[in-house]
Amino acid sequence: MAVLSFLLSGLLLCWAGVCAAIPDPRQREALMQQEASLQTGGRMALTEAERRLSAHLRKLKQQEMAGPQFPPAMHFFKARPLIQRSPIFSLLQRMPKGAVLHAHDFSLVGVDWLVKNVTYRPHCYVCFTQRQSVRFRFSAQKPLPQPQCSPWLLLETLRGKTDNITDLDNSLIHNLTLFTADPEAAYPNQDAVWSRFEETFLAALGLVTYTPVFKDYFYQGLQELYKDNVMYLELRALLPETYELDGSTHDMAWTLKAYQDVARQFISQHPDFLGARIIFTVHRGLNVSEVKKAVEGAMRLQKMFPEIMAGFDLVGREDSGRSLWYFREALSLPAELGVTLPYFFHAGETDWEGTEVDQNLLDALLFNTTRIGHGFALTHHPLAKELSRKRGVAVEVCPISNQVLKLVSDLRNHPAGVLMSEGHPLVVSSDDPATFGASGLSYDFYEAFVGIGGMSAHLGTLKELAINSIRYSSLSPQLKDKALALWQRKWDKFISENSP
Amino acid sequence: MAVLSFLLSGLLLCWAGVCAAIPDPRQREALMQQEASLQTGGRMALTEAERRLSAHLRKLKQQEMAGPQFPPAMHFFKARPLIQRSPIFSLLQRMPKGAVLHAHDFSLVGVDWLVKNVTYRPHCYVCFTQRQSVRFRFSAQKPLPQPQCSPWLLLETLRGKTDNITDLDNSLIHNLTLFTADPEAAYPNQDAVWSRFEETFLAALGLVTYTPVFKDYFYQGLQELYKDNVMYLELRALLPETYELDGSTHDMAWTLKAYQDVARQFISQHPDFLGARIIFTVHRGLNVSEVKKAVEGAMRLQKMFPEIMAGFDLVGREDSGRSLWYFREALSLPAELGVTLPYFFHAGETDWEGTEVDQNLLDALLFNTTRIGHGFALTHHPLAKELSRKRGVAVEVCPISNQVLKLVSDLRNHPAGVLMSEGHPLVVSSDDPATFGASGLSYDFYEAFVGIGGMSAHLGTLKELAINSIRYSSLSPQLKDKALALWQRKWDKFISENSP
Ligand SMILES: [Zn+2]
Ligand SMILES: [Zn+2]
Repeated sequence: MAVLSFLLSGLLLCWAGVCAAIPDPRQREALMQQEASLQTGGRMALTEAERRLSAHLRKLKQQEMAGPQFPPAMHFFKARPLIQRSPIFSLLQRMPKGAVLHAHDFSLVGVDWLVKNVTYRPHCYVCFTQRQSVRFRFSAQKPLPQPQCSPWLLLETLRGKTDNITDLDNSLIHNLTLFTADPEAAYPNQDAVWSRFEETFLAALGLVTYTPVFKDYFYQGLQELYKDNVMYLELRALLPETYELDGSTHDMAWTLKAYQDVARQFISQHPDFLGARIIFTVHRGLNVSEVKKAVEGAMRLQKMFPEIMAGFDLVGREDSGRSLWYFREALSLPAELGVTLPYFFHAGETDWEGTEVDQNLLDALLFNTTRIGHGFALTHHPLAKELSRKRGVAVEVCPISNQVLKLVSDLRNHPAGVLMSEGHPLVVSSDDPATFGASGLSYDFYEAFVGIGGMSAHLGTLKELAINSIRYSSLSPQLKDKALALWQRKWDKFISENSP
Repeated sequence: MAVLSFLLSGLLLCWAGVCAAIPDPRQREALMQQEASLQTGGRMALTEAERRLSAHLRKLKQQEMAGPQFPPAMHFFKARPLIQRSPIFSLLQRMPKGAVLHAHDFSLVGVDWLVKNVTYRPHCYVCFTQRQSVRFRFSAQKPLPQPQCSPWLLLETLRGKTDNITDLDNSLIHNLTLFTADPEAAYPNQDAVWSRFEETFLAALGLVTYTPVFKDYFYQGLQELYKDNVMYLELRALLPETYELDGSTHDMAWTLKAYQDVARQFISQHPDFLGARIIFTVHRGLNVSEVKKAVEGAMRLQKMFPEIMAGFDLVGREDSGRSLWYFREALSLPAELGVTLPYFFHAGETDWEGTEVDQNLLDALLFNTTRIGHGFALTHHPLAKELSRKRGVAVEVCPISNQVLKLVSDLRNHPAGVLMSEGHPLVVSSDDPATFGASGLSYDFYEAFVGIGGMSAHLGTLKELAINSIRYSSLSPQLKDKALALWQRKWDKFISENSP
């Protein structure tokens, strides 16, 4: 804020004395410009064509605000049809958005595809749990009984006996996503929504970890991102064992290599896509020695697969899980061994200010995290915020996730609005798009651009957010340069095709 | 943040190089302490007895958080019975809270009193509007017909004919407050709640502006504050004409003098109460020349009643009203004439980021405002925030008002949480307690302490908030000293009676 000193000191001098308070319109204008320049995208130079498109977006946004219902103020499940009809959304879909830096392995592909493609493959068994969810398993013979689940049924047989297959398929879809018509009734509080959230994950698990599906699923996930004009992915992945029809399994290294193979294959078929890197994750419900083993595994994998392996993170609900500080012994391991294992910690995904969990933000920074997942609570921590800013540790903002998981209802109140107004390093991401009824990155960009940024956000904001997703990625400097050059070509094309 | 430099520079140096990321527990502790010291109340020295009470409050807060329903996360109308049973609330009621610096003239007294006392006085007429509200008028004869209202009925006659007087009275109460069992259904959006809000004001108007009621009402209002351990009030007041039974009226000066007389009378009967000052307000729906006249009136009143007259403000919904900049000619008048008319502007009571309305914050500061009413959007304006901080322009935070008027649903997301974590100058206030089903200041203190402050807020926070309400009042330095000494005596008594 050094540039401000001159303007501010003038004002303060004036105020300290008895000087009359008739604002000078030029000074006012200068202060407004100054404030605008502080925000994300505020110092972004725009071409003439970009300025025209920005003015066009501004008009569209004003229309959206004047409407009877403002999508970012509504629950995403209700807002989705409105967003789909929004001309801003349609522009954002066409816009090259750079990278998705925060998404999870089991929510990359629309659940329709899981039901309509995967569950129609041969040997797919299903059982129904006591908590009104489902489990799947591919198997040559009927699988061993699953605890707290009905006997296994071959889906093919079940479909043969069912009058209304559409209903059956819809109920399967329903079990794989949180999406529902009346979210407030279905998920009255955070406990309820998180419990259902974890059920959807368990429901998808048996489908996605079937070896042949696993590779298809990831390919399909890259396809959905590519179609949404995303060019690179950093995936948080549990690297689960995958299984074959005969019950035999493959280990973590196989899974990581599968990701690498698919990414390479996808790139070879789409030369303007830059591939994917994997952030190995384990659940924060584990104990210290389990996390220690996972960290050791991560270091080993990093040596074996330096191209695809980006680092390490802990997943699961922070509010009910263990804190980073609890795992300090495990997390200190790489440094003790002189190994650099980059961390990409989820931290501050809470609105319990001042609790032990809320401490994760500072601890993530003390453990030298490369980025912060969510950082929802960061604005409550001026010191951690300052560290994150100075160190260039970007916050991965996932608006729809935070709303669906009930951290905030009206996205105009999302704390990233504060971060954007200060030009804090941040990227927009989608977390678990399939589970939230979203896909790709455009829905989250819409919420960030229209809701969080409000009328202050303009084309420069979008441009900086896209560039940030490359700048703050784990790519090497050389690959970043390559990515930025590729993105710029796509961007210029987008501007020339869409500027009025 | 100068104190931080040393700690931060160490960290940054370490990060810039390849130094291992094993956090030093002492450094971590120092950073946590440092961050805690930044917040509101963070540098407040506490006695041994205060520390014991603070630890007790901390335990109570943890219990409140562990419960199945967390009041600050709920709509106040639903949370109120829970808050009333909370031992924290009961402590806050007993605590000397200092001053209410943001409250409005027609919502000072519980609406029960209006119906059960005022409407039972003789000559009270009522009519029923097309928009399902009511109007009242005291009159010797039947008043002239009110447009868009049923014929006037003498309430005494109506009550005589009614089987169920309780039902009738409850329906009158219902018209004077927003309080209702199912607020989400009753007020689906901001337009709906503001429209009903303005109706409650119009319903109360005819009762409160009847000359004999007017003085009783204000006395009763001071009584409610006094009972809630508030010792001083700055009231935003429209200074309406008051009327007599024969239809004759008194002017603005009479109204202001009535406030002064009642305040003096109240002090004489309650020597430990410090009285009230008035901030003259007009509606932001007026045009420039009308506001000019109001500003001229304010300057005149200030000369006539320097003791009670504190300054000037504009009221009404910012989102649909005119901006401060629109009124710049009128608001520059005092400075042009070399007169000091303190301003206490409502500003930033919006979540429409980057709109013209949102500009009110910076303009309030440019017009040298003494405090900022609400400042809900301030965290989106880093430059205005910096000005407000450096200039010591306190933000009047009204949590329940912001929630009921649908700026934010879960008060843990209230932007004042950011301000508190930075130790920004702020006071807690109640805005329109009667309309929101609250009374006094304790409900808003509860929301600020338990919801906005979370586990980070402690007894030092409460102490600083109470002291702030005197420090940032419009009282003269001499009166501030007197007020602080009086408050300190009350505070010491509170501590000695309540510390475990
Ligand atoms: Zn995540
Ligand atoms: Zn107000």
